[in-house]
Amino acid sequence: MMHITRRERFNAAHRLYRKDWSDEKNLEVFGKCSNPNWHGHNYILYVTIKGKVHDDTGFVINLKDLSRIIKTKVIDAMDHKNLNLEVEFMKDKIVSTENIAMAIWEELEQDIANLGAELHCVKLVETENNFVEYFGH
Amino acid sequence: MMHITRRERFNAAHRLYRKDWSDEKNLEVFGKCSNPNWHGHNYILYVTIKGKVHDDTGFVINLKDLSRIIKTKVIDAMDHKNLNLEVEFMKDKIVSTENIAMAIWEELEQDIANLGAELHCVKLVETENNFVEYFGH
Amino acid sequence: MMHITRRERFNAAHRLYRKDWSDEKNLEVFGKCSNPNWHGHNYILYVTIKGKVHDDTGFVINLKDLSRIIKTKVIDAMDHKNLNLEVEFMKDKIVSTENIAMAIWEELEQDIANLGAELHCVKLVETENNFVEYFGH
Amino acid sequence: MMHITRRERFNAAHRLYRKDWSDEKNLEVFGKCSNPNWHGHNYILYVTIKGKVHDDTGFVINLKDLSRIIKTKVIDAMDHKNLNLEVEFMKDKIVSTENIAMAIWEELEQDIANLGAELHCVKLVETENNFVEYFGH
Amino acid sequence: MMHITRRERFNAAHRLYRKDWSDEKNLEVFGKCSNPNWHGHNYILYVTIKGKVHDDTGFVINLKDLSRIIKTKVIDAMDHKNLNLEVEFMKDKIVSTENIAMAIWEELEQDIANLGAELHCVKLVETENNFVEYFGH
Amino acid sequence: MMHITRRERFNAAHRLYRKDWSDEKNLEVFGKCSNPNWHGHNYILYVTIKGKVHDDTGFVINLKDLSRIIKTKVIDAMDHKNLNLEVEFMKDKIVSTENIAMAIWEELEQDIANLGAELHCVKLVETENNFVEYFGH
Repeated sequence: MMHITRRERFNAAHRLYRKDWSDEKNLEVFGKCSNPNWHGHNYILYVTIKGKVHDDTGFVINLKDLSRIIKTKVIDAMDHKNLNLEVEFMKDKIVSTENIAMAIWEELEQDIANLGAELHCVKLVETENNFVEYFGH
Repeated sequence: MMHITRRERFNAAHRLYRKDWSDEKNLEVFGKCSNPNWHGHNYILYVTIKGKVHDDTGFVINLKDLSRIIKTKVIDAMDHKNLNLEVEFMKDKIVSTENIAMAIWEELEQDIANLGAELHCVKLVETENNFVEYFGH
Repeated sequence: MMHITRRERFNAAHRLYRKDWSDEKNLEVFGKCSNPNWHGHNYILYVTIKGKVHDDTGFVINLKDLSRIIKTKVIDAMDHKNLNLEVEFMKDKIVSTENIAMAIWEELEQDIANLGAELHCVKLVETENNFVEYFGH
Repeated sequence: MMHITRRERFNAAHRLYRKDWSDEKNLEVFGKCSNPNWHGHNYILYVTIKGKVHDDTGFVINLKDLSRIIKTKVIDAMDHKNLNLEVEFMKDKIVSTENIAMAIWEELEQDIANLGAELHCVKLVETENNFVEYFGH
Repeated sequence: MMHITRRERFNAAHRLYRKDWSDEKNLEVFGKCSNPNWHGHNYILYVTIKGKVHDDTGFVINLKDLSRIIKTKVIDAMDHKNLNLEVEFMKDKIVSTENIAMAIWEELEQDIANLGAELHCVKLVETENNFVEYFGH
Repeated sequence: MMHITRRERFNAAHRLYRKDWSDEKNLEVFGKCSNPNWHGHNYILYVTIKGKVHDDTGFVINLKDLSRIIKTKVIDAMDHKNLNLEVEFMKDKIVSTENIAMAIWEELEQDIANLGAELHCVKLVETENNFVEYFGH
């Protein structure tokens, strides 16, 4: 069993808030992250998969395939976008780092299984001081 | 003569566009950076000042003073903000990395002179692959 | 279940030695790290907690609360200090990276539980080539 | 139980290919990594061991011992070498990052056990975007 | 006048040696870098250009154009290649970091001038401990 | 003319203070950096030299020679040391980053000239947020 990780990046705008809360309540809970005019980040995404190393290639999977899946399902949807307004799979969710990581897991899990590997971890770095890791449960 | 650099960071949303251009023209020139729904970055700012090392302190200036000026004039104005909509000194400017760096120079130059040092360089990192440096002329 | 990590930093002096050993014995075991005149490091601390993502906020816990706890319990006690002489919770311990990480765990565990999360890992980076991770047992 | 990690580096040339495949087949599967004239990397190796912290030293093991083992068994064999042609323990293997990590595990496991610790993870970083982790099974 | 820098990367094999020297002489001067079986690096390239910021775009030049030139002239020629055997503009040169940087300057200078900017610096990082900077004279 | 930079590191304890000032005055000017019990840093040193690229080697100078000089003159004197108490060339100086950089310049300048190159810059990084650069005048 081997773990392999691919790093990708996307730059996006977002806002932490709930529609059913007042601006005051949102500010109280989410602080400056609830700015109605948005702010943004250079998100760094690490996708770790695990699987058996195949004797004929020395690969678990070809990283080009993993990179292509991440780009098609995540980067194309999120890069240079407003995560609250423009990303189908974040609709009606609070756009916290935790929720983004879980949504990315959902986007990737089946496609990685189709490659014959298993999604192990989605790590999402929001700033150099903050990151989350989701293991699927 | 000694050069001293202080690093600070701010996370912000922005959009590259001109009001007097159509969306099509903006998209043609600025690409996905012209997204009308905004995107964002973790900007990293390096402010370099130069001056004589004072015999009594071993300092050119106290870095706490430099950090305070950068925070008051730049970080408080830009962090978790929309650079196009909310930053007074970016009003009516194209919010390119180049123009942000020049505007930051204008904000800092006099206050640093008041400390007895000279602003030497404003370096602004937008992504790990792109940065600008402005030397004041 | 989600893992969230907060990074904090502290700069400190320390020495690896045992009072009940001679300087020669300390030098033999701990090498240049036993210098009686001290040396120091820019320590980088990663605190990882785990817990359920709350539906109402999209957070496991508010990272401001985690950051405040780390600052109050660890950074205020250790930053710009002599870890052997000035840190109450390192008294009578060998100030190895391993022992510092375990002591930080003890300092943080209850306060993080009080926030409704669980401390998962204390990672302490001493140099770019060396770090330890402690999982509480 | 404590985890300790030591980072080491080596710069090497390699090629991904199988002798029993044609150049066309190798190119199809391994892409530009199958270049018959070789290419190379600055590999970064993280070796994580785990064990009990000894009361008399505050150490799991002395990191100098771990560093010496890694240098003797891995770095001396691989640094500034052609991994396909000159590394005994890679002979007749496809020189993928996965296979290198497993081979390094085999090289280190017994020597680390002899120090009274247990090898936990071999992490090998090939580029800033790709790395593997092997846990021994 | 503004300086703008674009970072690109390439992974390549090379060898430091002179054909007119014996293997012994090459080893004496170039050490392990003269290994006849090659070694390799993850090279990091920073290309800095300077120019006037255009009022209509806020750009000195569009970084996409700079990136395209670097990819066409340098990365396509050097990535996953043997720098001694396969790179036309390194033929009959000692493949030192210094000489690579000067050759990259020659490749880029005119194309950047054609964009209306001026090449200012080619910085080439060979390892985390070694880099060169060339300013064209 | 080519610029070449070598990175080296040292971990040391220090204190910012003047013997002829009271503890109160030192605290007022230097803040927590004046802690009488010391604190410390992982200093990162970049030494840049400049010179002509020699046709016979493709080198300005052999980096092994530069590394050896830095180690002999600077790292051996400062690593795992108390910069105030144990470093001959810091005696009777305020141990600010500025003064350390100037002292390192003095230590290196002649030896680098003896190699046929010219010392261009001593850059000393104290924390990820602060560094100084000294160009010799």
